[in-house]
Amino acid sequence: MNVNTPMDWIAVDWGTSNVRAWGMSRTGDILFAAESDKGMGRLNKSDYAEVLASLLAGHLDDGDTPLDVIICGMAGAKQGWCEAPYLATPADLHSLGRNAVVPDMPKNRLRPRILSGVSHDLPGEEDVMRGEETQILGLLTLKPAFSGTVCMPGTHSKWVRVADGRITSFATAMTGELYELLSTHSVLRHSLQGDLTGPALEDGLGTGLETGIGEPQALTGKLFKVRAAALLSGKTPDWCAGYLSGLLVGSEVAGHKNWIGAAPIPLVGSARLSRIYARAFDIIGAKTEMVDATTATLAGLTAARKQIS
Amino acid sequence: MNVNTPMDWIAVDWGTSNVRAWGMSRTGDILFAAESDKGMGRLNKSDYAEVLASLLAGHLDDGDTPLDVIICGMAGAKQGWCEAPYLATPADLHSLGRNAVVPDMPKNRLRPRILSGVSHDLPGEEDVMRGEETQILGLLTLKPAFSGTVCMPGTHSKWVRVADGRITSFATAMTGELYELLSTHSVLRHSLQGDLTGPALEDGLGTGLETGIGEPQALTGKLFKVRAAALLSGKTPDWCAGYLSGLLVGSEVAGHKNWIGAAPIPLVGSARLSRIYARAFDIIGAKTEMVDATTATLAGLTAARKQIS
Repeated sequence: MNVNTPMDWIAVDWGTSNVRAWGMSRTGDILFAAESDKGMGRLNKSDYAEVLASLLAGHLDDGDTPLDVIICGMAGAKQGWCEAPYLATPADLHSLGRNAVVPDMPKNRLRPRILSGVSHDLPGEEDVMRGEETQILGLLTLKPAFSGTVCMPGTHSKWVRVADGRITSFATAMTGELYELLSTHSVLRHSLQGDLTGPALEDGLGTGLETGIGEPQALTGKLFKVRAAALLSGKTPDWCAGYLSGLLVGSEVAGHKNWIGAAPIPLVGSARLSRIYARAFDIIGAKTEMVDATTATLAGLTAARKQIS
Repeated sequence: MNVNTPMDWIAVDWGTSNVRAWGMSRTGDILFAAESDKGMGRLNKSDYAEVLASLLAGHLDDGDTPLDVIICGMAGAKQGWCEAPYLATPADLHSLGRNAVVPDMPKNRLRPRILSGVSHDLPGEEDVMRGEETQILGLLTLKPAFSGTVCMPGTHSKWVRVADGRITSFATAMTGELYELLSTHSVLRHSLQGDLTGPALEDGLGTGLETGIGEPQALTGKLFKVRAAALLSGKTPDWCAGYLSGLLVGSEVAGHKNWIGAAPIPLVGSARLSRIYARAFDIIGAKTEMVDATTATLAGLTAARKQIS
C-alpha cells in the first residue's frame, strides 16, 4: 500500500467463482488489488463477513476510520450474503447506488453495501443479471451519451440494450458455460485433451466461427463435428478447441442479429474472449470497440458510490 | 429359459453406458434378455471376454455347441473390444455382416463377431455412428422399400438419409447429452431439483418446443430462460425440465428442416423420447411413425447374422 495516498474506499466484485477487491483513493487510483476463490458458489451466508475481512486484512492500515465497501455481483443474490432485490427493466442506473442493501458486518470499520441486480420480467423473456448492470453504469460514465446494444462476453454472456441511462432489455447466452461443460464433461472432451493453444487453434476458430454464423440454427448438430473431425480427419486438440469456441460464439452472435444496429457495439469482457467476439462481429459486418471489463466494473462501482454519498 | 425352444444365437448391443444381450431362437423368439452397466465407458480391452461370459452365464445350457454372438455398438470402437473399421457412406448395409471382426474369446463356446460402424467422411460434414447402422438395417428388414430420412432420438440423435439399402449421409445432434450436462452440471441444475414429472411438465414442454422451433438459432440465448423463469416467475422444476427438453428437441428438429421430405419419418428410439420428437415434427407439419429401438436393433442383428452365414 502506498502510504502517501490515503485509502478512500474499497471496490468489490463478488462473483460465483471468485471475489476481487480493490483499494481506491479519492482520485480513483488503485492502491491494491486482492482476489480469492471464495465466490458465492462455495460460501454460506454467515461466511461473507469473515471472508471479506480476511481478504482485506493485509491491505488496511491500523486506523479505525470507517471504510465504504461497495459490492456488486452474486453477493446480492438470494443465496448470497444479503439479498439485494432486482431493479426491473427499464432500470434507471442512476438509482443503482441508492438501492444498495447493507449486510451484517459485526464490529468492523468496513461498511459494506451491496448493489442490486437487474431483472427483465416480460413473460417468455425473463432474464436476470448481477454485476453486469454495474459495468453498464461504468460504461455510461466512460461514454455518457451511449445508447444502443452492449455485448458482454463471459460464462453467461449478456446482450444489453441501453437508452437514456437505462437498461431497457437484455438477454443471457450461456455460451461460456456450454464451452466449459462440453470440454469437461461431454464426449467431446476426448478430442480436447492435450495442447489447446497450438498453431491449429486459429484455423479451428475460423472454421467454427464461419459454421456457427452460417448455420446458427444447427448448433446441436454441429457440436459433434468436433469429435468426428478428430476421429476421421485427425484434427488436433488445438483445432478442436478453436472450432468449439468459434462454433459457440458464432452461433451466439448470429442468433442475436436483431440486437445489432449501425453503431459500434462495445464489447465488455476479457481481452481474450472479446477478441473472438470481435472476429465474429467482423464476419457479419458489424463494428465493435473493446472495453476492458475491470475498468468498466471499477467505473461503475465508483459511480454507484457517488450516488450513495 | 424355455427348455423346449433351443437357443440358436445371441444378439448383443454394446453401448457406451450399458450392454444388453438377448438369447434368440432360430425363428426369432427372444428366449432371455440380460443387461448390465458394463458399457464401453468403464471397460478395458481385456475385460470384454469375461464380461460377456458373465452376462450370459446363467442363461446358457450345459452344452458345448458353438453359439454365434452378433454384437453392434461401441464394442467395435478403437477404444472398445476390437476395432471394427467404419464403412464409409454411401454404406451398403447388405455388407454389414460380412465386414464383422472377430475378437479374442479364449476357450469358450461363444463365437463373438462385432459389426462395423459407419462414417461420413466429407470434409466439414464428418460424422460417425456405431449401433445405429444396425437399427437402420433392421428398419430395412421391417420396411424393405424404405427410402428417405430416419430420425433416431437419443443421447446422440442421428439423422440418417437412406436410399437403395444404403446410408447415403447422416448427422449427429448432441441433444440428449446437452440435456444431461445442463441439468446435472450447469447453473440450470438449481431449477431442476425436485419433482420433474409433475403436472407442469407438459406446459413447459409445449413452451420449450414452440420456442426451440420458432427460434432455433437462439438456442444459447434461450437456455438461460430456465433459470430466469424459475427465479422471476416461480416456474416449478417440472415446468423447467419440460421447457429445457422441449427447447433442445425443438431446436434440433427445426435446425434439420432440410432433412425432412414429404414421406413420414420413422422415429427410432425410446417411446418416451420419440413422443417428444413426434410432437415437434407435428408442430412443423411433418408426419412420423414410431419404431421401437429394441425391435430395430434385434431385426438388424438378425439380418447381419444371415449375411455372415
